[in-house]
Amino acid sequence: MLFFRLIGSALLLRVANVWSGEVMATGIKQCSSGRIRYLTQSEAANLDQELFNEYKFSVDQLMELAGLSVATAVARTYPPSTYQSALIICGPGNNGGDGLVAARHMALFGYTVAVHYPKRTPKPLYENLFEQCKRFGVNIVEKLPPAQDLANNYKILVDALFGFSFKPPVRDELKPVLNTLIDSGLPVCSVDIPSGWHVEKGPDSSHALKPAMLISLSAPKLCARPEILNDTKHFLGGRFLPPEIITKYNLTLPNYPAQDQVVQLSC
Amino acid sequence: MLFFRLIGSALLLRVANVWSGEVMATGIKQCSSGRIRYLTQSEAANLDQELFNEYKFSVDQLMELAGLSVATAVARTYPPSTYQSALIICGPGNNGGDGLVAARHMALFGYTVAVHYPKRTPKPLYENLFEQCKRFGVNIVEKLPPAQDLANNYKILVDALFGFSFKPPVRDELKPVLNTLIDSGLPVCSVDIPSGWHVEKGPDSSHALKPAMLISLSAPKLCARPEILNDTKHFLGGRFLPPEIITKYNLTLPNYPAQDQVVQLSC
Repeated sequence: MLFFRLIGSALLLRVANVWSGEVMATGIKQCSSGRIRYLTQSEAANLDQELFNEYKFSVDQLMELAGLSVATAVARTYPPSTYQSALIICGPGNNGGDGLVAARHMALFGYTVAVHYPKRTPKPLYENLFEQCKRFGVNIVEKLPPAQDLANNYKILVDALFGFSFKPPVRDELKPVLNTLIDSGLPVCSVDIPSGWHVEKGPDSSHALKPAMLISLSAPKLCARPEILNDTKHFLGGRFLPPEIITKYNLTLPNYPAQDQVVQLSC
Repeated sequence: MLFFRLIGSALLLRVANVWSGEVMATGIKQCSSGRIRYLTQSEAANLDQELFNEYKFSVDQLMELAGLSVATAVARTYPPSTYQSALIICGPGNNGGDGLVAARHMALFGYTVAVHYPKRTPKPLYENLFEQCKRFGVNIVEKLPPAQDLANNYKILVDALFGFSFKPPVRDELKPVLNTLIDSGLPVCSVDIPSGWHVEKGPDSSHALKPAMLISLSAPKLCARPEILNDTKHFLGGRFLPPEIITKYNLTLPNYPAQDQVVQLSC
């Protein structure tokens, strides 16, 4: 792994496809930088399947760790003392499941949490995660208010609508939900992929989601390159990759500080 | 919840069955104190069953969070930079499963980890957790060395042998393992219950395990009262209790700092 020190030339670093990361751990801000390899969509899918099939993880395990890291990154950046009321928007797949787990941990971290989960997956894991949310005091929002009204009730949004399996176009029934995220004017924290983005190429129109923060899970995908993210804050979470996976996919990831479940890649 | 400030009279606090806690979070040591309600064995069993049956948690989920908090507490107190080589001793039940999860996270935290798992549970979850350990580079110790030789290879032990379901006496086949833990001379970190202890009354003989650290999970059991633990460091982990459970069992627990998965109860 090739590491560079941040020496002040952001432009040079961008051109070299190198990230500069401000690591937040145990109250001390550390600056580090390094070269990252970003995953294609098919690599992300293969890696995911290997974790389950070859390394014998259950979805429950990895979703719990992923959702915990999302909640942790959100709370570090938008603390509940200031951003008291959060709305998590959950899609039908694993990304939505990560959102349901994050919602529960955010409730434990002191947020007033609401979840909008319009297309529910009829699988026991998802039904149980949803039930856990309700039992942790999470409010269920059946009908999403208009974008311009969201700021009356919420301070922060979490976008858990689509993950790395997403292929455009957005299906009609979820378009209004995505548009509400885009038009709310609130800071949006996206889980793994900003919803509606091409997993490798990024946003495909001028009316695309522009998240305030992205939490990449396990390893960043190509759409999370700095020249696409620009000033979006970028965290990595999902601290569960086996050493052989890191070697096989030639991953170059930053070190997580101490026992942290997240590491910040850009400030 | 009734809170007292630590004003220097440890004896007075002990008599009043009040703990004084030094909270380690985000690099800042905070001191707090409060009155704790300790669970009986049957309360611990009922609470556990409610989490699965009523709150719809899977064992995978809670074991992952429990094991993560064990690994976190161990690494905070006995960091891998000093205590590089760790041996986790896993029993046949859920306590052993927590140990297998902790072993994996400790490997991710930078320890060289070994696991002794003499009585293996033939259930998919346990087999998978064990397989994950192996794939994360955890060494499997089939035959435990004599107690006096352990310090040649290890700096720290984790006791995940028996949990809150334990009822004495220790069965013959696991007596040598427990005796090795007792006689090693190494610091031992016990998961939820120091193995061999009565869950409510504590150690029942002069040749009992005296752990350097105890990580209580979800809520401390009666054997974790300060007058029994004495100078054993005491952490609470397993940050997953629903509010209704806290009310129903009249639990008085310290606040977890920020997004931490552990809170230190005694220094």
